[in-house]
Amino acid sequence: MGEFELIRRHFARPVRRATLGGGDDCALLTPSPGMQLAISSDMLVEGRHFLPTVDPRKLGHKALAVNLSDLAACGARPLAFTLALALPQADEDFLGPFAQGLYALADAHGCELVGGDTTRGPLNICITVFGEVPSGAALLRSGASAGDDLYVSGSLGDARLALEVFRGRLSVPHGVFEAARARMEQPTPRVALGQALRGLATSAIDISDGLLGDLGHVLRASGVGACIDTTIAINLIATQPDWTGAEATFDTETRLGLVLAGGDDYELAFTAPAASRAAVQAAAQAAGTPVTRIGRIEAQPGVRLVGAGGQLIERRYASFDHFARV
Amino acid sequence: MGEFELIRRHFARPVRRATLGGGDDCALLTPSPGMQLAISSDMLVEGRHFLPTVDPRKLGHKALAVNLSDLAACGARPLAFTLALALPQADEDFLGPFAQGLYALADAHGCELVGGDTTRGPLNICITVFGEVPSGAALLRSGASAGDDLYVSGSLGDARLALEVFRGRLSVPHGVFEAARARMEQPTPRVALGQALRGLATSAIDISDGLLGDLGHVLRASGVGACIDTTIAINLIATQPDWTGAEATFDTETRLGLVLAGGDDYELAFTAPAASRAAVQAAAQAAGTPVTRIGRIEAQPGVRLVGAGGQLIERRYASFDHFARV
Repeated sequence: MGEFELIRRHFARPVRRATLGGGDDCALLTPSPGMQLAISSDMLVEGRHFLPTVDPRKLGHKALAVNLSDLAACGARPLAFTLALALPQADEDFLGPFAQGLYALADAHGCELVGGDTTRGPLNICITVFGEVPSGAALLRSGASAGDDLYVSGSLGDARLALEVFRGRLSVPHGVFEAARARMEQPTPRVALGQALRGLATSAIDISDGLLGDLGHVLRASGVGACIDTTIAINLIATQPDWTGAEATFDTETRLGLVLAGGDDYELAFTAPAASRAAVQAAAQAAGTPVTRIGRIEAQPGVRLVGAGGQLIERRYASFDHFARV
Repeated sequence: MGEFELIRRHFARPVRRATLGGGDDCALLTPSPGMQLAISSDMLVEGRHFLPTVDPRKLGHKALAVNLSDLAACGARPLAFTLALALPQADEDFLGPFAQGLYALADAHGCELVGGDTTRGPLNICITVFGEVPSGAALLRSGASAGDDLYVSGSLGDARLALEVFRGRLSVPHGVFEAARARMEQPTPRVALGQALRGLATSAIDISDGLLGDLGHVLRASGVGACIDTTIAINLIATQPDWTGAEATFDTETRLGLVLAGGDDYELAFTAPAASRAAVQAAAQAAGTPVTRIGRIEAQPGVRLVGAGGQLIERRYASFDHFARV
């Protein structure tokens, strides 16, 4: 099967929102008046962002999810995306379910495929996503102020737990693993929450490289620091309730490490004035996404972790750096 | 050197046109009123789109050039691009010149890097480019009509000649090879010509997979056919004047094959009404890009090649299909 036939079979669907979709040299998008276009691009590589054993359907989901997560962090509404795909061979068994997983998530967010590229090469998935946000309303990394509350959405650390089990460094009961694995393989981009936080959050970022690492970007961009309550943060790992039988394997240190520096979470970390607490919870409820207040923004640069009774604890967690990690 | 440091060092420059560039979750673009956004994405893989021996500076040029060529084919003005890059290692010797080649072409077209991604993996370059075109004015593949003239810009076949020399299938004098190699490694996107053809050309496409293959897309999208004068087309190969000494190696058939099905040319093929001949030549002159009228559009589907005296000649040239090619 030739390249063009391959593309046609799996990725040619009529576009609704775009003026012109895949099949011409460019896609054409007509932005709504008063809107800015938010753009993000992520590249997924086998062995780094997903395991060779991954179900192609889940990979299709994840490849788009990590991009939608960037739109969410800006408070943008998804519009469209392009897909560039390098494949070792034109593999029907891969492409069919990959396209299904991709389209299922795209359709759920009204985000349509408008173009792209397919070529032969080591498996590589590059998606560029487009969203719109009212001019000046985008959530940025640079708006946090001392005194703001610090929040995260959903749960943290589960994806990294699954990875560590895959690597043989941790072991958990099968049911726990499956739940964690679902978080790793099919993250939920917090698109509704991001939009609900427009006008409320003073800064936001999506957590892809671990909370501490990504929070660091916000703090540096905003010229502030933060204090995190680890007695709250440690409960952010969703699979915790099932850990009883395996408790011995996971000391507090490990659990906190997964939460603070796990990576691959695709939750939002954001800040909002303390006066907006009720409004933030209402926005979270409207978006159907739980949020947890885990600390506050402070004038002093850096991150401070406090334990029970508010005492400062010293720990260093590396952020998830694709070029530093072994 | 970590991922973030790597990105900062080579790809962090202040943006001028974008509201927000790389360094936040999304880039923000504010399209001009009345403009549509033209979007295209291309992925370049080592061994398929470039040779491992390529000068990184030229690779940086080419990676953006092939994307700008898509904007040119739509008549769009370049605005911005994202770069996603997978690298085997954070290699200073690669990244420095790659960024220089990329930025040199970007600056020449006022097209700014607004975001992207960097990760470890087999070398892969994915650029998504954004341009703007007045609403409804984009050049499409679907507008060719029977009776229109068929044109191509610049020269065709030289890039493929260089590739065949690299492969050891053809040999040419050194000077000829260097000229052809420059065409392969540093194609010239016909951005000014594309914009000059707005309102004149009835259809356009950029020639990346060979003239016949790409023209086929136009013909199918427009529901027409074409007739090409091979006595004109055969002269489109730019390195021809130097071939005298090597004439024996290159029969007419080979030369015509390079022109018609070479690939990697990044010229424009376009159609325009016969009544617009003077206007087309004026537009080409204004854009500083030569164009050649090589045939006409006909109602009968398919492509017909005619030789000296207008007799029909039978030849089959495969298009450049990334999954069909050995």
